[in-house]
Amino acid sequence: MRFATMPNGTPDGRLHLVSRDNSRCTPCQTVATLQEALDAWDGLQGDLQREYDALNAGGGVPFDGTTALAPLPRAWQWLDGSVYESHGELLQAVFGLEPLEKTGRPLMYQGLSDRFQAPCEETKLPSEDDGIDFEGEFGVICKATPMGTKARAKDRIALVVQINDWSLRKLGPIEMKTGFGWIQAKPICSMAPVAVTPDELGEAWRDARVDLPLNVSWNGEKFGTPNGYEMAFGFDDLVAHAAYSRDLPAGTVIGSGTVSNTNFREVGSACIAERRGIEALDEGEAKTPFMSFGDNVRMECVAADGSPVFGAIAQKVVKA
Amino acid sequence: MRFATMPNGTPDGRLHLVSRDNSRCTPCQTVATLQEALDAWDGLQGDLQREYDALNAGGGVPFDGTTALAPLPRAWQWLDGSVYESHGELLQAVFGLEPLEKTGRPLMYQGLSDRFQAPCEETKLPSEDDGIDFEGEFGVICKATPMGTKARAKDRIALVVQINDWSLRKLGPIEMKTGFGWIQAKPICSMAPVAVTPDELGEAWRDARVDLPLNVSWNGEKFGTPNGYEMAFGFDDLVAHAAYSRDLPAGTVIGSGTVSNTNFREVGSACIAERRGIEALDEGEAKTPFMSFGDNVRMECVAADGSPVFGAIAQKVVKA
Repeated sequence: MRFATMPNGTPDGRLHLVSRDNSRCTPCQTVATLQEALDAWDGLQGDLQREYDALNAGGGVPFDGTTALAPLPRAWQWLDGSVYESHGELLQAVFGLEPLEKTGRPLMYQGLSDRFQAPCEETKLPSEDDGIDFEGEFGVICKATPMGTKARAKDRIALVVQINDWSLRKLGPIEMKTGFGWIQAKPICSMAPVAVTPDELGEAWRDARVDLPLNVSWNGEKFGTPNGYEMAFGFDDLVAHAAYSRDLPAGTVIGSGTVSNTNFREVGSACIAERRGIEALDEGEAKTPFMSFGDNVRMECVAADGSPVFGAIAQKVVKA
Repeated sequence: MRFATMPNGTPDGRLHLVSRDNSRCTPCQTVATLQEALDAWDGLQGDLQREYDALNAGGGVPFDGTTALAPLPRAWQWLDGSVYESHGELLQAVFGLEPLEKTGRPLMYQGLSDRFQAPCEETKLPSEDDGIDFEGEFGVICKATPMGTKARAKDRIALVVQINDWSLRKLGPIEMKTGFGWIQAKPICSMAPVAVTPDELGEAWRDARVDLPLNVSWNGEKFGTPNGYEMAFGFDDLVAHAAYSRDLPAGTVIGSGTVSNTNFREVGSACIAERRGIEALDEGEAKTPFMSFGDNVRMECVAADGSPVFGAIAQKVVKA
């Protein structure tokens, strides 16, 4: 099934089902919002599936992802992993950080989730001097997950999403040195318009990972197409890690961290900091600047047969 | 004004006004929940004040804080500072951490806030081996605060609260080394039953700090009575820090971090880790163990004239 949320003047918007080709949508009759659906997910599957099948058979109205909100416009928890090892190594290079010990634990922080931006919303930030960067990621939205969930963690994943995690790179290392994680360095995130159940990905949902390239362009120029599969931990591992000492409420969003591949010189990157890391390695210094106000970024994932998946994130960054 | 939230079977509970002596309460007629009140705080002040004045004149029912929920049973953001310098120094000693550079920036992380525990709720945690500790804190609950708020940050503070921030100390340093902050080391927090407007504190609300001792006991034995005033940054500074690159939604909770005083040998501590830090300094090694299942902690703050303020947190920790 595929879901989008259209604006209706409320913080949670109005849940819609979206047809398999992302071309048509219809307001969900079973529940009004995605949070309501997630609160009772398992019990609603029959009704939602019937609505989805009917939409795929015909009807609905044209779906325009550029006018959608984030599929989940606000969530009770946003836990962002960082589990692409090539990303970690490049960022250590560019920021001069110590290599992390191999602890067998995924990296994860908690970020703000009282609002996820719409996929084509302008992003207002305080200063170009902060090193404005995009980060293309995949993520999952969970059903309610009790503390201690481990073996069945994969079953807690309700939906897969695509995320842009804005980052302020000049502030990042200052906050990391404290050990407390990020507050100022991690502003609001955005989500691509369509959230999909894992089965929609077919064989591209593999080992609780998204085996598809994320196509990223910056100001209209291709920037990278890294594939989502190379996660050192699957989303199931991330769910279990997050649930060790806390309950995860329905609608918890868990991110992969910036998608990154070991053959980064061929496939490029999903954030500027990583390209700067490659430049630091290859040319002795980082040359690519971070974003300027007025710049835009586009992120989109396309299935192996060319069909759309999550729809596109297309955002401009402007002065707050 | 003083507010408490009583259980009614919903996640947000039912907002009550509490009399100035914390002895009586009455359901709020203006709004049903504290989140609703915070969403429209300034415009509701007249109505809320009239309800509060009427309650103080008489009426209502007896208030029993042990049956209350947290005044704000869930919040969209929980940003916990750590701004008592003596606390930081002692924890560096006990955990062998490098001293933090003096950056002029408050320490702060984002923790889980989809639920705050009731003041007398049992806390379920996975293992005694994780180093279970309490942390007595003060906190503020904010009105909606736009990104970039700085000079008027103090005006965004709606309420003052008292918090127990559970910590798993064996996991803390492991997560700190990553720079990403805490996920597993920071389980759910609890709140004392009564949230008060700053004016209720009288002269004890000084420089956006709570100038009152927090009385902490562990298994019935006095553990510490540190005063809240020694914050290196006031709550106004913490609000401004948090709002640099994000909007703070109405109901954002900002914590002081564990209350701690430079004369810790006289006044004791508000967490076990700090006592262990003192032992490490004075006796060469930390001797006091962390909590065992079945242990309880009590935290209460009393005004200079002996009157109650936030009511008591009294929690037992048990195996999940």
